[in-house]
Amino acid sequence: MIYEAVYHEASSNYSYPSNNNEMTLRLRVSSKDSFKEVNVIYGNKYDYYIKQKKIKMTLKYETNLFNYYEVIIKLDDLRFVYIFELIENTKTYYFCEEGVKETYDFAYAYFNCFQYPYINDIDLHKRIDWLKNRVFYQIFIDRFNLGDKNKDLSYINLKVDEIPKPTSFYGGDLKGIINKLDYLKDLGVNALYLTPIFKSISNHKYDISDYYSIDSQFGSKEDLKELIKKAHENDIKIILDAVFNHCSDRFFAFEDVIKKGKESKYFDWFIIHGDKIDQQKVNYEIFSICPYLPKLNTSNKEVREYLIEIGKYYVREFDIDGWRLDVADELSHRFWREFRVAIKEIKEDCLLVAENWHNSYPFLKGDEFDSIMHYSFTKATLDFLAFSKSDCYETAHTLNALLTRNTDMVNDMMLNLLDTHDTDRFYTSCNKDIDLLLCALALQFTFKGVPGLYYGIEIPLEGGYDPDNRRPMNFAKIDNNSVYFKTIKELIKIRKTNKALQYGDIFITAQKGLLILKRKKEDSELTLYINNSGVDVNCNFKNIILGHNYKDYILYNKGFVIVSEVKK
Amino acid sequence: MIYEAVYHEASSNYSYPSNNNEMTLRLRVSSKDSFKEVNVIYGNKYDYYIKQKKIKMTLKYETNLFNYYEVIIKLDDLRFVYIFELIENTKTYYFCEEGVKETYDFAYAYFNCFQYPYINDIDLHKRIDWLKNRVFYQIFIDRFNLGDKNKDLSYINLKVDEIPKPTSFYGGDLKGIINKLDYLKDLGVNALYLTPIFKSISNHKYDISDYYSIDSQFGSKEDLKELIKKAHENDIKIILDAVFNHCSDRFFAFEDVIKKGKESKYFDWFIIHGDKIDQQKVNYEIFSICPYLPKLNTSNKEVREYLIEIGKYYVREFDIDGWRLDVADELSHRFWREFRVAIKEIKEDCLLVAENWHNSYPFLKGDEFDSIMHYSFTKATLDFLAFSKSDCYETAHTLNALLTRNTDMVNDMMLNLLDTHDTDRFYTSCNKDIDLLLCALALQFTFKGVPGLYYGIEIPLEGGYDPDNRRPMNFAKIDNNSVYFKTIKELIKIRKTNKALQYGDIFITAQKGLLILKRKKEDSELTLYINNSGVDVNCNFKNIILGHNYKDYILYNKGFVIVSEVKK
Repeated sequence: MIYEAVYHEASSNYSYPSNNNEMTLRLRVSSKDSFKEVNVIYGNKYDYYIKQKKIKMTLKYETNLFNYYEVIIKLDDLRFVYIFELIENTKTYYFCEEGVKETYDFAYAYFNCFQYPYINDIDLHKRIDWLKNRVFYQIFIDRFNLGDKNKDLSYINLKVDEIPKPTSFYGGDLKGIINKLDYLKDLGVNALYLTPIFKSISNHKYDISDYYSIDSQFGSKEDLKELIKKAHENDIKIILDAVFNHCSDRFFAFEDVIKKGKESKYFDWFIIHGDKIDQQKVNYEIFSICPYLPKLNTSNKEVREYLIEIGKYYVREFDIDGWRLDVADELSHRFWREFRVAIKEIKEDCLLVAENWHNSYPFLKGDEFDSIMHYSFTKATLDFLAFSKSDCYETAHTLNALLTRNTDMVNDMMLNLLDTHDTDRFYTSCNKDIDLLLCALALQFTFKGVPGLYYGIEIPLEGGYDPDNRRPMNFAKIDNNSVYFKTIKELIKIRKTNKALQYGDIFITAQKGLLILKRKKEDSELTLYINNSGVDVNCNFKNIILGHNYKDYILYNKGFVIVSEVKK
Repeated sequence: MIYEAVYHEASSNYSYPSNNNEMTLRLRVSSKDSFKEVNVIYGNKYDYYIKQKKIKMTLKYETNLFNYYEVIIKLDDLRFVYIFELIENTKTYYFCEEGVKETYDFAYAYFNCFQYPYINDIDLHKRIDWLKNRVFYQIFIDRFNLGDKNKDLSYINLKVDEIPKPTSFYGGDLKGIINKLDYLKDLGVNALYLTPIFKSISNHKYDISDYYSIDSQFGSKEDLKELIKKAHENDIKIILDAVFNHCSDRFFAFEDVIKKGKESKYFDWFIIHGDKIDQQKVNYEIFSICPYLPKLNTSNKEVREYLIEIGKYYVREFDIDGWRLDVADELSHRFWREFRVAIKEIKEDCLLVAENWHNSYPFLKGDEFDSIMHYSFTKATLDFLAFSKSDCYETAHTLNALLTRNTDMVNDMMLNLLDTHDTDRFYTSCNKDIDLLLCALALQFTFKGVPGLYYGIEIPLEGGYDPDNRRPMNFAKIDNNSVYFKTIKELIKIRKTNKALQYGDIFITAQKGLLILKRKKEDSELTLYINNSGVDVNCNFKNIILGHNYKDYILYNKGFVIVSEVKK
């Protein structure tokens, strides 16, 4: 046995309650080891020394180095303690807090067994029910659609077929989105993530000077109310963008500090090295390399209260369905904990999805975010289908590794993306290969979590890095009859209706050059096969519900097939 | 390289800020691998792709399977990202979020490097300054000393030399402690942990019926005030016991629910399976196997507020220095987070030390407890010095493993115990071998953290499991002139005065049958050598400041030596 591989941590993504009386346990072992059985020996903390139950774990995720076993245990006593039993052909091992041993003395278990001491309801990270059949569509508002022709249009300097510059304005607004709700409904998406809408001088509006005003380029509070009302009437959810890490240097508090220095009552709202702001020397903490984006100090209670009040205001007054949290990992954990409590008190199923490009487990324990924009999924998909850095075997391992980073609840709420306003367009990354883009979409739509489309992918729009990835949406280029557009619509429909994709289990493997992704829920099963092996593969699929580049038992290179089965 | 052994997790006990501009990083690798160098390649998130710095890690902890490297990095930019570089003789490896690779492309680091995105001051887990030179002394009040001879003494049924039963009362009280403050000061202890003092029918008072009354057996609020005032005058801190997981079935809220069932406004203060309490069937959640100890429901906001108010009351009105938190792991994380914020707002350096017998990292991330009663240390010491289950080599590994469970701040605040009212007395566990008990004390007093003595060890009292471990303190048996008593006093003095023991670094190894524990802080160094190998060992120690069973260059079996050096 490779002892170094054996890993478990109690009260973590390896050991968590998924509801009031149910524990999920995960155990990592080496992929080189094979066990006849892997068991959990568990019980009630207070009589574990004399009374134990045993339950078998099953192999769930395989990576290049590790095998992950899982089991869900229904509890009749919530004072839950446990160890693992690993049975090889001739030997049995016991794994407890002190490590792997060849014998285990239950009389001393109170010192060294694992435990999840008690499932307290309030600590549960609950799945948001409405998320389970959602397809997100991200709208970069200035570039989507101009609706209000009566507004002052003089700021507009970009035409639909032009390449944007950092200073371009195309004129998109909230009314423009309202006007396209029918289109979006027909496309099938049923949740919109809008980039920031608050007062700001830029086209992207990530530099907010007034969180309580809708920028006049985009419309008014009435427009926002109308958009949300009409969206809700069509079962479309609306998520706004919360830019709380930093503000514009035109934000009232920062302006006050510029004026008054240490005398300003907002001095501690920022992190300033010195007694007054020096915008030349940039003697204050900022976002990235932008002196005009001073960082807000969320160690300060007033700042936390101010920002939380904004968060609450749009949920309470406008009934938004969630917040996308910009640069969320640079704010304090304390802030997000308080933010979560405050928001969920108003609307329990309000989604909190954070921008966080890295393994975000520290924020995803149930007390901060619900999920993140899943850029690690983006990277895995790019490596497999755009950059040829990973074959299907490596990709299966990588995707499995991603699934072990978080609890199953978080995995189910992840916002899986191919691209956003912060990345190259996938279509451009894969050299405008429609076949590869469709394979990527098929993966995105069947992977555990919620697929998020970036506006324009349905054309598809192309675009490199910012600002090229923010080209105007060109509705004239939608080709209702193209295989591409029809396949996207079909994927959206499958995602919304197939039970196996709605918080169903996931199993990812690779065989014969194919990536195989299986989803299961109760009697429903769905399997995706992707071929990006470079050669065509003979396959005899049954119950195909969608495919691309498949014909006569051949799954061609750069093709996929989705198979669905309902067990009787 | 043994890939399976390589482990790191960002924003965890492997990656944490110890102050505003300083990160501690830990990396685990196999103990079988040897590296020429282990480095951190780090930088600022926003220009990491073009600009990196490098710093060397040093080997800090060794266990049977793993080597742990550590480094503390001073930051000039708080947007901290990093990967690890492991250099073997002929090969170099890079370790990032995606695992170990032979090359690393910094251009894609934004997708897969490790990060601690920003050190926000409010997320820091700060060491409590006053803890650094403390020696705790736990008093089981009924068994310590009777001070108030004017109270109704009729409940007393236990004499000083009798073995207690579960129903025994010896008569100890707060005045009795006040009367012994001079004794305690002379002994040298400078922090008292008192078992519960609130209204309760038992001798131990872990079944509280009124959190706002001092039990009349123990005294009054005036007595508590006097005790704390006099203790503080003598630089002795006072910690009370917070029993919040459960209450007595005589607690007003539970009595109300017994009476009114679902109609009681306290119904949801408990977790009841049904519409009314059935004390025969025990249809409600309880502590352990005790129907008279109903569990309080800390998922309920009113319960949290009620308990937090108690926590605040004794800090605010009585100026206590900390709370010991009973059965803390069975309450909700949400409760402890709120509790911590509320208490620290009143008194920032109020210690929160929890009863938690297991790896408690989930509670020790800085937002819940400061530390725990370190029973895993107890177990390691028992295995080494009482049960002969571990030799010095295994013990070094075990102690090193314990030190990797938490951040260095938590390690420095751990309450290291040989025994408590919930364990056998160490003296009894080691078959009343004074030499072994002294070795255990030497280990306890030099290990990272705060030593906690259980009243009576200075005699030493003997005792098996509860209630035998709660025998009356017998002041007549104190032998001021015994080697044993003098050695304890000397250990207490060294712990309080030696700089290396005050939040100093720790390094534990074993050689020639000796356990070797080294502490270092700035120019001060202290080393403990313990011999429990079964044979005497030749040693040539210099600068011995305390020893037991050492003479003429021989460290006898069951002996220890403490060596201290100040570098010039």
